[in-house]
Amino acid sequence: MDLDALLQGVQQGSISIDKAKAELQSAPFAKIDEYARIDLHRRIRTGMAEVVFCQGKEDQFLPEIFQTLISNYGEVLGTRCSPQQAELLQQHFPALQYDAVSRTIALSKPKDLIGNIAVVTAGTADIKVAEEAARTCEFFGGRVTRIYDAGVSGLHRLLAQLDKIQSAHVIIAAAGMEGALASVIGGLVCNPVIALPTSVGYGANFHGLSALLTMLNSCSNGVVTVNIDNGFGAAFVATQINRLAVRGAAN
Amino acid sequence: MDLDALLQGVQQGSISIDKAKAELQSAPFAKIDEYARIDLHRRIRTGMAEVVFCQGKEDQFLPEIFQTLISNYGEVLGTRCSPQQAELLQQHFPALQYDAVSRTIALSKPKDLIGNIAVVTAGTADIKVAEEAARTCEFFGGRVTRIYDAGVSGLHRLLAQLDKIQSAHVIIAAAGMEGALASVIGGLVCNPVIALPTSVGYGANFHGLSALLTMLNSCSNGVVTVNIDNGFGAAFVATQINRLAVRGAAN
Amino acid sequence: MDLDALLQGVQQGSISIDKAKAELQSAPFAKIDEYARIDLHRRIRTGMAEVVFCQGKEDQFLPEIFQTLISNYGEVLGTRCSPQQAELLQQHFPALQYDAVSRTIALSKPKDLIGNIAVVTAGTADIKVAEEAARTCEFFGGRVTRIYDAGVSGLHRLLAQLDKIQSAHVIIAAAGMEGALASVIGGLVCNPVIALPTSVGYGANFHGLSALLTMLNSCSNGVVTVNIDNGFGAAFVATQINRLAVRGAAN
Amino acid sequence: MDLDALLQGVQQGSISIDKAKAELQSAPFAKIDEYARIDLHRRIRTGMAEVVFCQGKEDQFLPEIFQTLISNYGEVLGTRCSPQQAELLQQHFPALQYDAVSRTIALSKPKDLIGNIAVVTAGTADIKVAEEAARTCEFFGGRVTRIYDAGVSGLHRLLAQLDKIQSAHVIIAAAGMEGALASVIGGLVCNPVIALPTSVGYGANFHGLSALLTMLNSCSNGVVTVNIDNGFGAAFVATQINRLAVRGAAN
Amino acid sequence: MDLDALLQGVQQGSISIDKAKAELQSAPFAKIDEYARIDLHRRIRTGMAEVVFCQGKEDQFLPEIFQTLISNYGEVLGTRCSPQQAELLQQHFPALQYDAVSRTIALSKPKDLIGNIAVVTAGTADIKVAEEAARTCEFFGGRVTRIYDAGVSGLHRLLAQLDKIQSAHVIIAAAGMEGALASVIGGLVCNPVIALPTSVGYGANFHGLSALLTMLNSCSNGVVTVNIDNGFGAAFVATQINRLAVRGAAN
Amino acid sequence: MDLDALLQGVQQGSISIDKAKAELQSAPFAKIDEYARIDLHRRIRTGMAEVVFCQGKEDQFLPEIFQTLISNYGEVLGTRCSPQQAELLQQHFPALQYDAVSRTIALSKPKDLIGNIAVVTAGTADIKVAEEAARTCEFFGGRVTRIYDAGVSGLHRLLAQLDKIQSAHVIIAAAGMEGALASVIGGLVCNPVIALPTSVGYGANFHGLSALLTMLNSCSNGVVTVNIDNGFGAAFVATQINRLAVRGAAN
Amino acid sequence: MDLDALLQGVQQGSISIDKAKAELQSAPFAKIDEYARIDLHRRIRTGMAEVVFCQGKEDQFLPEIFQTLISNYGEVLGTRCSPQQAELLQQHFPALQYDAVSRTIALSKPKDLIGNIAVVTAGTADIKVAEEAARTCEFFGGRVTRIYDAGVSGLHRLLAQLDKIQSAHVIIAAAGMEGALASVIGGLVCNPVIALPTSVGYGANFHGLSALLTMLNSCSNGVVTVNIDNGFGAAFVATQINRLAVRGAAN
Amino acid sequence: MDLDALLQGVQQGSISIDKAKAELQSAPFAKIDEYARIDLHRRIRTGMAEVVFCQGKEDQFLPEIFQTLISNYGEVLGTRCSPQQAELLQQHFPALQYDAVSRTIALSKPKDLIGNIAVVTAGTADIKVAEEAARTCEFFGGRVTRIYDAGVSGLHRLLAQLDKIQSAHVIIAAAGMEGALASVIGGLVCNPVIALPTSVGYGANFHGLSALLTMLNSCSNGVVTVNIDNGFGAAFVATQINRLAVRGAAN
Repeated sequence: MDLDALLQGVQQGSISIDKAKAELQSAPFAKIDEYARIDLHRRIRTGMAEVVFCQGKEDQFLPEIFQTLISNYGEVLGTRCSPQQAELLQQHFPALQYDAVSRTIALSKPKDLIGNIAVVTAGTADIKVAEEAARTCEFFGGRVTRIYDAGVSGLHRLLAQLDKIQSAHVIIAAAGMEGALASVIGGLVCNPVIALPTSVGYGANFHGLSALLTMLNSCSNGVVTVNIDNGFGAAFVATQINRLAVRGAAN
Repeated sequence: MDLDALLQGVQQGSISIDKAKAELQSAPFAKIDEYARIDLHRRIRTGMAEVVFCQGKEDQFLPEIFQTLISNYGEVLGTRCSPQQAELLQQHFPALQYDAVSRTIALSKPKDLIGNIAVVTAGTADIKVAEEAARTCEFFGGRVTRIYDAGVSGLHRLLAQLDKIQSAHVIIAAAGMEGALASVIGGLVCNPVIALPTSVGYGANFHGLSALLTMLNSCSNGVVTVNIDNGFGAAFVATQINRLAVRGAAN
Repeated sequence: MDLDALLQGVQQGSISIDKAKAELQSAPFAKIDEYARIDLHRRIRTGMAEVVFCQGKEDQFLPEIFQTLISNYGEVLGTRCSPQQAELLQQHFPALQYDAVSRTIALSKPKDLIGNIAVVTAGTADIKVAEEAARTCEFFGGRVTRIYDAGVSGLHRLLAQLDKIQSAHVIIAAAGMEGALASVIGGLVCNPVIALPTSVGYGANFHGLSALLTMLNSCSNGVVTVNIDNGFGAAFVATQINRLAVRGAAN
Repeated sequence: MDLDALLQGVQQGSISIDKAKAELQSAPFAKIDEYARIDLHRRIRTGMAEVVFCQGKEDQFLPEIFQTLISNYGEVLGTRCSPQQAELLQQHFPALQYDAVSRTIALSKPKDLIGNIAVVTAGTADIKVAEEAARTCEFFGGRVTRIYDAGVSGLHRLLAQLDKIQSAHVIIAAAGMEGALASVIGGLVCNPVIALPTSVGYGANFHGLSALLTMLNSCSNGVVTVNIDNGFGAAFVATQINRLAVRGAAN
Repeated sequence: MDLDALLQGVQQGSISIDKAKAELQSAPFAKIDEYARIDLHRRIRTGMAEVVFCQGKEDQFLPEIFQTLISNYGEVLGTRCSPQQAELLQQHFPALQYDAVSRTIALSKPKDLIGNIAVVTAGTADIKVAEEAARTCEFFGGRVTRIYDAGVSGLHRLLAQLDKIQSAHVIIAAAGMEGALASVIGGLVCNPVIALPTSVGYGANFHGLSALLTMLNSCSNGVVTVNIDNGFGAAFVATQINRLAVRGAAN
Repeated sequence: MDLDALLQGVQQGSISIDKAKAELQSAPFAKIDEYARIDLHRRIRTGMAEVVFCQGKEDQFLPEIFQTLISNYGEVLGTRCSPQQAELLQQHFPALQYDAVSRTIALSKPKDLIGNIAVVTAGTADIKVAEEAARTCEFFGGRVTRIYDAGVSGLHRLLAQLDKIQSAHVIIAAAGMEGALASVIGGLVCNPVIALPTSVGYGANFHGLSALLTMLNSCSNGVVTVNIDNGFGAAFVATQINRLAVRGAAN
Repeated sequence: MDLDALLQGVQQGSISIDKAKAELQSAPFAKIDEYARIDLHRRIRTGMAEVVFCQGKEDQFLPEIFQTLISNYGEVLGTRCSPQQAELLQQHFPALQYDAVSRTIALSKPKDLIGNIAVVTAGTADIKVAEEAARTCEFFGGRVTRIYDAGVSGLHRLLAQLDKIQSAHVIIAAAGMEGALASVIGGLVCNPVIALPTSVGYGANFHGLSALLTMLNSCSNGVVTVNIDNGFGAAFVATQINRLAVRGAAN
Repeated sequence: MDLDALLQGVQQGSISIDKAKAELQSAPFAKIDEYARIDLHRRIRTGMAEVVFCQGKEDQFLPEIFQTLISNYGEVLGTRCSPQQAELLQQHFPALQYDAVSRTIALSKPKDLIGNIAVVTAGTADIKVAEEAARTCEFFGGRVTRIYDAGVSGLHRLLAQLDKIQSAHVIIAAAGMEGALASVIGGLVCNPVIALPTSVGYGANFHGLSALLTMLNSCSNGVVTVNIDNGFGAAFVATQINRLAVRGAAN
């Protein structure tokens, strides 16, 4: 926010009062017509650039939003991107790569992946949410270890992978149905577990509510929870933690 | 219901039509004033005598209800019995034994315990519900193996007892908070698991709802669920299954 | 888990320490790419082989999953199988038989059915869930007695079948709407009743919640509950109980 | 509302316009300070005088409210009356009779009871709500048949009373826990069943929600529902129906 | 149930014991394959013949179900009948008349309508549920007064029809959104009001839950509630009450 | 309601008693067949003419409803109008203008917009609800300031517009997901904030419930809430307040 | 925020950069130890001074909080004040006046009340919440018209007061149970109605949820809602609207 | 788990097979009678020693549990400790220090606090939960910055502390009512925010549900959630992250 520079400019007369006022009130975002305000300072403020949540975005604005981010950062990530939206975007930006399982679309600059984020799923139906998380972590520069279909109904499948899970800086545990995976992992590791409830299941699952409540009530410590099916949100925090672990307090 | 005998009596004239009608419509229960109808045929019909759910029963009727059951069966079990009710009952029936943890009160005939019912709890706070279950199983003649404070936050505590759990004919898994215990046990044994959610926990536990939903959505097979804190209900079904296992189809 | 053999091999030098470690940590499952881990030890561990929950499984992996199970067991059962999935699978395995009502698909070895499992429904709309249960029981070798459309709004329909219901080792009671069937049966039999709530109904039924709560709160004893529409889960436990009843403690 | 008389008075000049306006806008109620407006026309409008819902009423106004009703009607009924309130009221009106079970307090003119209203409960804990209903029916002049502790866990207890139930003009079925009683009765009678859910139960009963949903989703026809523990409300409608049945359309 | 005749036959030898047993246990219903048990004694038992809830019924059984009822009663009513089902049924029974608004289909014998049932709706979107109620009442022989689009947001619309509403023996009040209609009518009439919540609305309406709760908590007396969108259920009870009013206790 | 004139007419004999009765009971609405009662006095009574909620209205009545309002007022507004309904209506009234984003359709007389209503959204997906609000305000004659995509995840976007927001007479704050926008604005302004929760979000958002609860529990004062996605409702109250602010107590 | 003055001071050298930074970042609040930050600028920012929500405040800090506000404003209002807290506060500030019904405590400067705010309740039990609203309005300088016990179960009680209600600039409608009052008033007035749900009721009222949903789903326009029992919140917005109506846009 | 050493012992004959089996199955916990199994390996496995959740623990076992932990670690922390329990414990261990606000009791070894954890609350009523978090962080060796009563209703109170908040490695944001604090902080910082919903509030807050949903649906990234009032759980994960930030991947 460089308040010092601004106030010194005012003191020295190099910045007029009106200009200072405008600057203090101006928003560092790009406007797409009257539609969207893209937050270009987010990378400075929060360490990660804005990612496009494609679902519900109008076709008429979507390409321009991608254009603005590509122009500013040279890369872009879109989540919850439908096949139709992907097709539209790829017509404008052929370099975009679409992954149908995770519904992510990305143009990613090459980067050296750092740290170690484990992404574990209970079943195969949780994979699409887990992949949204894994690909987001990778886009933000984290190294990912995937361990899928390792739920507690066959505990040996999980225990067989315990070394891999224990060596991660942070673990994303994606599970639907009763969501017990997060509690069990939480009792076995010493780093944070981000519990990611999925809407997989039926009946008294209530679209993911069961897994969500399970995870919030975990009897194991070290477990925090994000919204149902929010693979991106889990990845964002996992990235923050992974960076802290690799770069230390200088992060 | 001995319909044959009744109809033969009618045919032979030894039973009048009016009497047959009355018999067909009469209920084999003992009335306590206009208050309660004690179901004395329940033992014949369902294999287990009526047990007194003491909570909410009026002091003026409680002793008579116990008297009726003791007279008919020579033994009685009361659940959800408050210390005040216990004191009242013991004034009438000094032989009654009260257990303050499980809030059960019983006069039990000596019996050879049969089979093997494991009662497992996740934490120490689940013990009072588990003891209601365990003591009910014992009252109905089942042998009980207690394994308490073995929740999934320290998985080795559970695995260390695995042999005991796997050798039971039926397992009662009592857990509050997130209730993951039932799913984990369900994946490790070959006999039925009766999931017993407890109201232990706080916040998004919603008085046991979280554990209940977890158990209903178990990703492990072989798990069935009873109402929150319903130790008696779990024990009743466990007794039925244990008897089937010991006595076979002749049960 | 044959821990003895493994440790003896280590002691005798026939098994290296590294190999033992690997073995102890290895999982007895078949991996389908990175997608699924099929639990081939489940039959040893829990007495019943893994069944394929088809819903949500990707077309590219489904045939290989069926192939793996057929190769290992000579038979396979799939539940929640859509007509499209059935068509795909039958192209690969023409011997598979699809039942459109219950949405099950199976290749079943001939077996002598044992015991007696009653499957009762309240209405005709509950039949599709009940058939999933009945066919699963039969796949696992149980003899099934079907009693459909016998709900409590016309009590004589149920009472007319009482003999059949009372002679079963275990009863599955499938009902939607208010789900009172399970309570009524529970008061009339001496063996366990597995209450199977269905999502049949509308309005304040809330997609099966009403029937689920009814069953969890049953005033009759001997009633346990599974998830809404979970015909497979009901059948799994019914099979366990039926086997215990037939084979006794040697199960 | 006697609009004719009023307008004729205006036409004939015997009633001034201002007076007519005032009359048209005036409310036929007695004001207790600024506190309450007692609806004295309710008996004319709805056929039954206002009954005092005592719960939460301030001690300083309660006696005056009773006084107003006694003065106008020569009788009064209070519901949800605490023992403390009863004591206060009886100091003012010694003739008031308090029933501690139903928490009703009444001064009732002698009347010939008419018709036939059956009040049935599933268990003994439902009696206090049922008695509120029964005593309200009697205060309004209906004849009541009480059948208590006749729930579906022992179906014969209910069937033994079937004649009595079938001969009533209207049945109030009070039940907590799973509330199946209303559905079962609904299938056996030809007159309306007023389902009265009670808050008896625990756990997934959710303070009566389970019984309420059961009753709303009844698979039997002829069942309507009132609020949880609303014995008065059930009695009010039962009285209306009973009067229609006895007096016919001239009611 | 004519128990006397049966028992006399046994006594006189004209009915064998085996036959009596069979009769006592036989169910007076018609079986459609193994699919449905049509309750032909319902008209005797509850005063109204079985009505077909078409939703979810399989095409292969639907015509036979209609055939059975037409054969026995000479008339039939189906509710929740889709246009496709209507077309199928009309191919078999051209005399059937389908009403697309209420989704009812009927073959009705001419009858003299009796009594007076008012069906009131709050808005125009509630009409389809109200028509299901109105046509059911008429099928069962009741005279119906329709008053539609008379909700409380314009109170004069309702007050303008007050005479008509007050003269009915029973009122069905259908409303979605906040459902205040039932309370307001309840305060203005002296006969029972059957509150019929509809799922009309959006957002915090939660598919009719808002209207349902409003009606259950009515501050007016004389209001009972049926399930959301359950026009048939409201009509059934309204018919019972209307008959009691017209025919008196001889009903 | 001009009661004086009516009563004077009665007194002077110029109005007969029967006519007065009819008048007093007549409803100032236009009937569309038996279908709808259009409330033509609403503008007099509540200051704003009836607006057509198109959703669920039958095609056969919709044009006549629009015709009635256009005839009486020379303008009309329809909300929740589908593209199909818009097409139908425009065939009858080519002057109608349809806005696909807000799903409103209008024929609006030119008017001088008054006052200042700010409509703020948290994200771009909230715009369609916000536009329903904004266009309704404009139809009723209010001047609207739109500030879109200014949610709290980038607080500077909101603060940059603070002057505009603070100068409005009333603010509509539309937000989905967690809905924090209303609380933050509430703490920064001195005029009323109408919180408009939208159903934007997923998972534990529960179709807008999360935002609704947030807004109802606002820790800031000066915040009132309308139903989820109820842009029209927010606009109606905003119009009332804006008029009071501009016209003062003479409104 | 007087940014101009600050920046001019910096430019002219009369304010140092460090001081300007401190000022820009300083919060205009009074700290009570580390416990509370009393927002003294709130009156400037939002037009009304901070009011003390006493519930849960520690005894050791409460007097100091009152002292701070009295010192700054010469008056103070506390809500949700228990009798014990009132006693404590009156020991420190004998001039404070406590109202036990509304649980408010106040030291209020004499002021000329302006405008017209109607506070209406459905029943007598709603009065304590309504009084919190009424007294808050008066503390903030608004004139209040109280109309209590005028619910829709006796509609004439409400209609008799219609003139008073229609002449208010804004109406607060407090109701528990089914909360229909707000909808009915909404249809009869042209100014905003602030619906204030109360927790009065029982059973399916769910502690005010029923009234809350009713009010959010009001079929009448011009109705906005605040939290259950939030009399203060309703009064705050009513004050804002009342001021706008009296003072116009210059407010 | 030192599997190598065990297996080498077996290979070398220094450990018998039976002993190895026992060891592999033994649990490293201390048993308190049959009551509790204290997990002494937890510090090895998860990096932090077991903390005693005092609520609901029996008086007869509590001192022994504390004794076991003090003996093994020389320090102990108890949470949710009632004043009565504190008194009991201090009789046994006078060195224990009890904090009545946070209900924690501790005997803590002196340690150099590391890193930087910010604990922020929205209001003063959230402080007791926040203090549980803060004191737990300190017990585990983290340095804590407390910022209390800085909620969004007076945004400047929060912005005034922004530097402190932004410089923390991890932020715990404790808020009740609508819980918007976490979203606002999430948009302003680059490190993880642990959202800690509290049960502070009333009405539609539903005991913390409102704040919980708000936090789960946060539109800001970098926000994860723990259970309502779970100060300990928030602190546990904050400690993990703080350690990772200070010690890097070597943690």
